[in-house]
Amino acid sequence: MRKIPVGILGATGNVGQRFVQLLEGHPWFEVKFVCASEKSLGKRYEEIVNWKVSPRIPKDIAKLKVRLCVPDFNARVVFSALDSSVAGPIEEEFAKKGYIVISNSKNHRMDSDVPLLIPEVNPEHLDLINIQKTRFKGKGFIVTNPNCTTIGLTLALKPLQDAFGISRVSVVSMQALSGAGYPGVASLDAVDNVVPYIGDEEEKVETEPLKLLGSVGSGKINNAKMIISAHCNRVAVRDGHLESVTVELIKKPAIEDVVKAFKSFKGLPQKLNLPSAPADPIIVRTEEDRPQPVLDRDINNGMSVSVGRIRQSAIFDIKFTLLVHNTIRGAAGAAILNAELLKAKKLI
Amino acid sequence: MRKIPVGILGATGNVGQRFVQLLEGHPWFEVKFVCASEKSLGKRYEEIVNWKVSPRIPKDIAKLKVRLCVPDFNARVVFSALDSSVAGPIEEEFAKKGYIVISNSKNHRMDSDVPLLIPEVNPEHLDLINIQKTRFKGKGFIVTNPNCTTIGLTLALKPLQDAFGISRVSVVSMQALSGAGYPGVASLDAVDNVVPYIGDEEEKVETEPLKLLGSVGSGKINNAKMIISAHCNRVAVRDGHLESVTVELIKKPAIEDVVKAFKSFKGLPQKLNLPSAPADPIIVRTEEDRPQPVLDRDINNGMSVSVGRIRQSAIFDIKFTLLVHNTIRGAAGAAILNAELLKAKKLI
Amino acid sequence: MRKIPVGILGATGNVGQRFVQLLEGHPWFEVKFVCASEKSLGKRYEEIVNWKVSPRIPKDIAKLKVRLCVPDFNARVVFSALDSSVAGPIEEEFAKKGYIVISNSKNHRMDSDVPLLIPEVNPEHLDLINIQKTRFKGKGFIVTNPNCTTIGLTLALKPLQDAFGISRVSVVSMQALSGAGYPGVASLDAVDNVVPYIGDEEEKVETEPLKLLGSVGSGKINNAKMIISAHCNRVAVRDGHLESVTVELIKKPAIEDVVKAFKSFKGLPQKLNLPSAPADPIIVRTEEDRPQPVLDRDINNGMSVSVGRIRQSAIFDIKFTLLVHNTIRGAAGAAILNAELLKAKKLI
Amino acid sequence: MRKIPVGILGATGNVGQRFVQLLEGHPWFEVKFVCASEKSLGKRYEEIVNWKVSPRIPKDIAKLKVRLCVPDFNARVVFSALDSSVAGPIEEEFAKKGYIVISNSKNHRMDSDVPLLIPEVNPEHLDLINIQKTRFKGKGFIVTNPNCTTIGLTLALKPLQDAFGISRVSVVSMQALSGAGYPGVASLDAVDNVVPYIGDEEEKVETEPLKLLGSVGSGKINNAKMIISAHCNRVAVRDGHLESVTVELIKKPAIEDVVKAFKSFKGLPQKLNLPSAPADPIIVRTEEDRPQPVLDRDINNGMSVSVGRIRQSAIFDIKFTLLVHNTIRGAAGAAILNAELLKAKKLI
Repeated sequence: MRKIPVGILGATGNVGQRFVQLLEGHPWFEVKFVCASEKSLGKRYEEIVNWKVSPRIPKDIAKLKVRLCVPDFNARVVFSALDSSVAGPIEEEFAKKGYIVISNSKNHRMDSDVPLLIPEVNPEHLDLINIQKTRFKGKGFIVTNPNCTTIGLTLALKPLQDAFGISRVSVVSMQALSGAGYPGVASLDAVDNVVPYIGDEEEKVETEPLKLLGSVGSGKINNAKMIISAHCNRVAVRDGHLESVTVELIKKPAIEDVVKAFKSFKGLPQKLNLPSAPADPIIVRTEEDRPQPVLDRDINNGMSVSVGRIRQSAIFDIKFTLLVHNTIRGAAGAAILNAELLKAKKLI
Repeated sequence: MRKIPVGILGATGNVGQRFVQLLEGHPWFEVKFVCASEKSLGKRYEEIVNWKVSPRIPKDIAKLKVRLCVPDFNARVVFSALDSSVAGPIEEEFAKKGYIVISNSKNHRMDSDVPLLIPEVNPEHLDLINIQKTRFKGKGFIVTNPNCTTIGLTLALKPLQDAFGISRVSVVSMQALSGAGYPGVASLDAVDNVVPYIGDEEEKVETEPLKLLGSVGSGKINNAKMIISAHCNRVAVRDGHLESVTVELIKKPAIEDVVKAFKSFKGLPQKLNLPSAPADPIIVRTEEDRPQPVLDRDINNGMSVSVGRIRQSAIFDIKFTLLVHNTIRGAAGAAILNAELLKAKKLI
Repeated sequence: MRKIPVGILGATGNVGQRFVQLLEGHPWFEVKFVCASEKSLGKRYEEIVNWKVSPRIPKDIAKLKVRLCVPDFNARVVFSALDSSVAGPIEEEFAKKGYIVISNSKNHRMDSDVPLLIPEVNPEHLDLINIQKTRFKGKGFIVTNPNCTTIGLTLALKPLQDAFGISRVSVVSMQALSGAGYPGVASLDAVDNVVPYIGDEEEKVETEPLKLLGSVGSGKINNAKMIISAHCNRVAVRDGHLESVTVELIKKPAIEDVVKAFKSFKGLPQKLNLPSAPADPIIVRTEEDRPQPVLDRDINNGMSVSVGRIRQSAIFDIKFTLLVHNTIRGAAGAAILNAELLKAKKLI
Repeated sequence: MRKIPVGILGATGNVGQRFVQLLEGHPWFEVKFVCASEKSLGKRYEEIVNWKVSPRIPKDIAKLKVRLCVPDFNARVVFSALDSSVAGPIEEEFAKKGYIVISNSKNHRMDSDVPLLIPEVNPEHLDLINIQKTRFKGKGFIVTNPNCTTIGLTLALKPLQDAFGISRVSVVSMQALSGAGYPGVASLDAVDNVVPYIGDEEEKVETEPLKLLGSVGSGKINNAKMIISAHCNRVAVRDGHLESVTVELIKKPAIEDVVKAFKSFKGLPQKLNLPSAPADPIIVRTEEDRPQPVLDRDINNGMSVSVGRIRQSAIFDIKFTLLVHNTIRGAAGAAILNAELLKAKKLI
């Protein structure tokens, strides 16, 4: 099979680097174009990237000349790691010109005709693409993945929603530094400290899951009927968002039924055996002190959510702790899995 | 005034050191006896303590000969920082021999005749002392302060309980390393990590506030009728427990009324002007990203709880973030304030 | 005594904040003017400062209206915490207009007529002021303190130089995050990491001590004849630079003579009993694992250098570890001590 | 090829876990026996190990029953990660019984008939094995690898020694937490801190390289004639020792010749293409701020030493910074490479 050439928009930032890293040796996609802002134009990728995600830049990418984020190159698919301050119009521009935009940016997530996608959770939302194509008058469209904290949370809520129904969720996140990009969080705010605030984050965590767990009907998403309340904190962890979750269920299962729901959870990516799909989207840990970021974030190449400390809660029904690798399953890896699903469904 | 001579049980640990530090130059109490385990017997305090809480051991204490934790010395009051593996019987032994035991240990906190005391919250619980004296057949008795996480939480709940009534509380703590003593948490568990478990901690946080916020009647405490659910996490912070709190209230106040309740909160220690009492037991921060451990833990010598991010919660009524200095207001400082209240009420 | 009104140039940065904090309640000086860049003009200090050095901004300063860094206000003395990108001409402008500029910036440190001053080390260098006054044609002049790493090193070298003579010095620093200001070092560069490079730092550490330890003669400084080689590293410490130092001496003393030289070291500030002078400029630690940043940086209000692990070195003569509080003794406190010496010598 | 069955002594500690991890899927060796102390006897490895080096214990090893460290099992080769408090006699016991002991422990490193081996540096020291076999009266013998800090340093010194000759070396290490095992360093000693002392470490770093760089002659090692002086510090880094090195050379090369010596350095493992041998034992970094632990420790699976900031030193001739992965190239990986060399030379 000839690999599909792809471009990366915003290729030099933290998530952009993760795209480059995770797409190295990908069986279906091949990075042929790296796009960044004007000041990098024409330079080799290795000259201008402040590479931080592994010891070495993948060789073939290192030498690529950096292009502008303009739809003038020969690829049908682009991955967008653009900053939300610029992502909105650029992504639309690409879609209008017929490109398939797989975006990690927040700008179009809540657009009514844009799928906000986690392949294990809501693959049927891809139906929105047809409506979107009408908007963009062509073959181009945008598919987005949710916020990093949302992805971990929603992957864990999905089997509970299916098996028992969910009415209320309380989530407190302890989020990793890489979530803020580079330079991002100042070290004086991180060392010996926790910052109990992340701009815009709680709003995303409280709303995005409602769309993700909603149903498609009459060409639009009907949001799930549950209420989520979030506290988002920044802690001195490099990668891996930890979340303390408390859930009110509609049916009242025993703890072992909850464990079973987590353990048996599989989605379409597992069925289709997509290249980046982990065998188990959810790993259940039974130790009393797991998951932990430093020990568990990299399991299954950072694509599984680890869930542990599943127990009863006095205020609601159950509580547990989950961990998601925020720049892999929570960002670049999520987008790549989205692209793989599109390919498997012949939408690319 | 002649100062009251006091002893410290478990004087070499983290909390024991805080007692020594905070009692240096205290207007009412003077440390005359430092007690530890057999292996330290007869040595000078400075020879055996691994002093970590300030640059220098207070001079007068440095030279004290270490004694056993045995009630054979000439002081009426002892502060206990004993490890819970040994505190139970030792503290009783002292009480039986007529000593007043001001304990930070968990062992007797839930005894029905032992006051679990936060002077701003439940000074009327000191009535239990009379019952206890019957048990110990003399003048001796035990007064305890709650767990560090509980103290911060309960100080913040008290004005809400008084003004609006509380039905349910969800709390997620991000607790400091010093809470586990020394050596305590291994550095490989702390650096670039969060541990989502602290032994026995959630049980304490879910039960101790019920006693603290309960009422005295017929010689016993009638627990408050609320439900608390806790997740306790250990983060890479030296001092200062941060707590993300969500509260269901019985009355439904506006946010500004909640802020007012916090700001106007004063207790008996403020009225009595006790030496360690902070002017404001609760400090309200209005910045969007406060309180933070490294910035706020030392305010008012570590004796105030900082509350910030007061806002509405979709699942309950309000949510906020609080910070308590775990080894000062949450441990040694709490016990010293307890002793000051006893003295002011002529119970010492 | 009426206090001397002073201004602070660059009052909002990390060192500027330290000036504000350390001058609160100063017996001789009173901050009356805070100056910053144009965008802060006319706002209250508390509105624009991102205060990080203590729980609360000193009350009187909080309300001050921020001014431009222009010599148009009624104070004879200004402390400069300006960034080196702008400090050069601004400080000269103030000196020309007759102000006494006590600067922490690097720009004029090596000017031949500007004293680079550590009051315990080279108070006689103040003779340069007369020459400088000729340059500025008036009463104004500039006095600078050295780089933070240099101050700690030079304070420790001074007694060795006096007693034994120094020929070569090897120093490896492990420097605190606050040395880079705020936001300064990115947290992703700090957590679980060391950065073995600090821009321009090694040059300063290798040259500034030569001027400091030099002698005044014929209206200029004759640099000390020693060679210094430095490696400067950034570590995940909030405050306090640690330095591993190896020294080749001209005389060959026993270790106890070296210890004695450190312990008996006093300077003019101690003789004059200056308000910010520590009783002992050098504290000798005898424990095998001290000094440590978190334990020792605050001793004597951060104004003493702690020296420990004094032992023989196979390659040179002696080696030891030193610690200096980089934003107090290494910056704002250093400048204030400089101002105190000027006042005591009636140069202010 | 049938794989060679091997045992691991001290299989549950930090280095023991690294042996298990690195030997998973090894082409020549297969872990068949895991040995630990009496309290683990008979339990499955997964039941008693506090696994910290990767998300999951290798499956086949997880189920192994733990044995005592007694030479009663059917393997010719054992890897020893024993604590130095017990390693001495146990390793001898195995050697006496005919086992080949590949040890990471310090106990026998300086024995005159035991090779202290870095395969790229001194493979000819394996000649000592014949002498040792006389001592143990059989086929058994011990081969050791040096201390973690020594390995990084000596790999970097070897090409300099060969090309220019070395007279003096000053090294200051900033060592990772994992070097102290688990629980090892207390988190309160690590967070916001540096500890300027590591027990026994400086002695090892000052002496082991002299044996490693020495020559074999008349059945013994003649130590290299150079002088090394070390300061060893513990920093808040999980893995990867960073070292600031200053070297006095006998010949006086230009910097580019030094760079060339590093870059062109290869050893016997590269020639023999041993499974764990990195293509380049030394990686030269040209960025001004590299190597850094978090970015560079894992290059070439943790088996290469990264060298950067190569420049002239005022006191000696050159200075540079190096990084070595302390538990891989500095411990378990080192021992495995030693075993591979023995196998390639038909000594196993």
